[in-house]
Amino acid sequence: MHLPALALVPGEPAGIGPELCVRLVQQPRTDCRLLAFCDPDTLAQAATALGLPFRALPPDAVAERPGDLAVQPVPLAHPAHPGQTDPANAAAVIAALHQGAAACLDGRLDGIVTGPVHKAVINEGGIAYSGTTELLAQQAGTDVVMMLANDIVRVALVTTHLPLRAVADAITAPALTRCLEITAAALRRDFGLAAPRIAVLGLNPHAGEDGHLGREELDVMIPALDALRARGMDLVGPLPADTAFLPQKLRGFDAVVAMYHDQGLPVLKYSGFEQAVNITLGLPYPRVAVDHGTALDLAGRGIADPSSLQAATALCARLAAARGPTRAA
Amino acid sequence: MHLPALALVPGEPAGIGPELCVRLVQQPRTDCRLLAFCDPDTLAQAATALGLPFRALPPDAVAERPGDLAVQPVPLAHPAHPGQTDPANAAAVIAALHQGAAACLDGRLDGIVTGPVHKAVINEGGIAYSGTTELLAQQAGTDVVMMLANDIVRVALVTTHLPLRAVADAITAPALTRCLEITAAALRRDFGLAAPRIAVLGLNPHAGEDGHLGREELDVMIPALDALRARGMDLVGPLPADTAFLPQKLRGFDAVVAMYHDQGLPVLKYSGFEQAVNITLGLPYPRVAVDHGTALDLAGRGIADPSSLQAATALCARLAAARGPTRAA
Repeated sequence: MHLPALALVPGEPAGIGPELCVRLVQQPRTDCRLLAFCDPDTLAQAATALGLPFRALPPDAVAERPGDLAVQPVPLAHPAHPGQTDPANAAAVIAALHQGAAACLDGRLDGIVTGPVHKAVINEGGIAYSGTTELLAQQAGTDVVMMLANDIVRVALVTTHLPLRAVADAITAPALTRCLEITAAALRRDFGLAAPRIAVLGLNPHAGEDGHLGREELDVMIPALDALRARGMDLVGPLPADTAFLPQKLRGFDAVVAMYHDQGLPVLKYSGFEQAVNITLGLPYPRVAVDHGTALDLAGRGIADPSSLQAATALCARLAAARGPTRAA
Repeated sequence: MHLPALALVPGEPAGIGPELCVRLVQQPRTDCRLLAFCDPDTLAQAATALGLPFRALPPDAVAERPGDLAVQPVPLAHPAHPGQTDPANAAAVIAALHQGAAACLDGRLDGIVTGPVHKAVINEGGIAYSGTTELLAQQAGTDVVMMLANDIVRVALVTTHLPLRAVADAITAPALTRCLEITAAALRRDFGLAAPRIAVLGLNPHAGEDGHLGREELDVMIPALDALRARGMDLVGPLPADTAFLPQKLRGFDAVVAMYHDQGLPVLKYSGFEQAVNITLGLPYPRVAVDHGTALDLAGRGIADPSSLQAATALCARLAAARGPTRAA
């Protein structure tokens, strides 16, 4: 059996990412091998603070004991201090992401799991950065879709971090088509769903109510969905967003495609925040991230919840296994 | 003890409203008296279809047995047929709402409970109607706020049935102030919360992220909230909408004020649709409505869920009791 090898990038060194990685490797894994891209001293320091065993192994070593983790060193400029960000370390945070992604792009690794990055401190460090999803998409040269998922629901977003004022104009037929194509392809290839059934939310309340509450459904969305249906996609909608998430309705869908951030994410986070993960669809490799921030106020105290990183790692291993070996390619 | 007397308006005669009213009166009530405004024959027909006892009593009679209901007759133009709307009956549907509301306005009754109305068939009947909330506000000459609530969360909306494209411009300081004042006043007077704590959602994703994802929070919302705080209101926000509904956060708020329909309602409906009710804040009397539609496909089959009407009636009785006797006024 092919055992996927995944890049693990802890993210902000002053946040909870390092300690979550140390917690993650306290249990032996049978679903993947992990190779961390980060400063090994930061991990060791986090392990000491938590009183947990930890050994940073060489990149090609195999973990044997609890606390073992293969590490590709990406040194920080300054030692990390939990809770205190340092713009001088921004370059190392970004370099670790680039190196982990590069290993996936050139086939050395099968996927990437990423921890939380602190956007403001990266920008303070003089590096243009709007998010890890965007960074990975740019590095790979692909269009991507952000999907958030937990055990209850998978939500893909047509627009993500856009002012609400700009959303309506961004819901174009090409944008909708691109998002649905990427989402459907990922559900088939990565999630093993032969004929994914996707709920598509309307842009307007009540999905426009036949044009009384906005015309985008009639003028843009329905024609675009019909064109995709004609090509065999199983799409339901445009649906009113307020009732599309009713539990009995959700059970009939493999994913929900929301038009914008605050339409799609409140139910996802309400229904299971701790286990929620952030999946980037459309990359040449699987990427799963935690669905939480750097939590600077919790860092180093040993109380951060590792559920999201555990869920992200398990899902990335599953997605990578579903794609099969790429490392020989 | 003052026993509130409530108007009960079933709404669309071809929908599930009449049978829900018949179900509602199968149990004796100790929290209120009910006076229905509708065609008594429609209720009797629904009771026959369901095999339930029913007697339409004169308006001033007191219900004594299961199935008793005092009715102020508002005759239909044509007999109702479950599942088949008839625009000729639109005038009677609207008249019933107006009469029930008038009885509250002139102090004969203490509140109103309303069933679902079918907007399109009212308009087909030649009557301009955009919703019962709007009708009642106009009749009373007051500004109102729509609040949806279940056992988990109360959500008030600054904008309701507005195309998404128009939402950002509608979030003005006066609109926000008006909504928050009405909401806070209702939480104090009707819900008995001496110092209500209200979560206010940002307009933009991540509540604008310090202006990076939209400036409305900085330019409009924060100044308006600060002005209200200076007058003693306990407001939290603007909060990112996706995480404001996390269960542990919700427990700290008496209500959530959302900027628009699809930002506020998905979690509410996900977390308890059956028990959800629609409360109109700002009227001179309490009004609570079911949070579901006419369900024409279910009408007359005896399978419609009466939970929302039961919850609406119980809540309206509680809100009316909290205001104390108004009928002497």
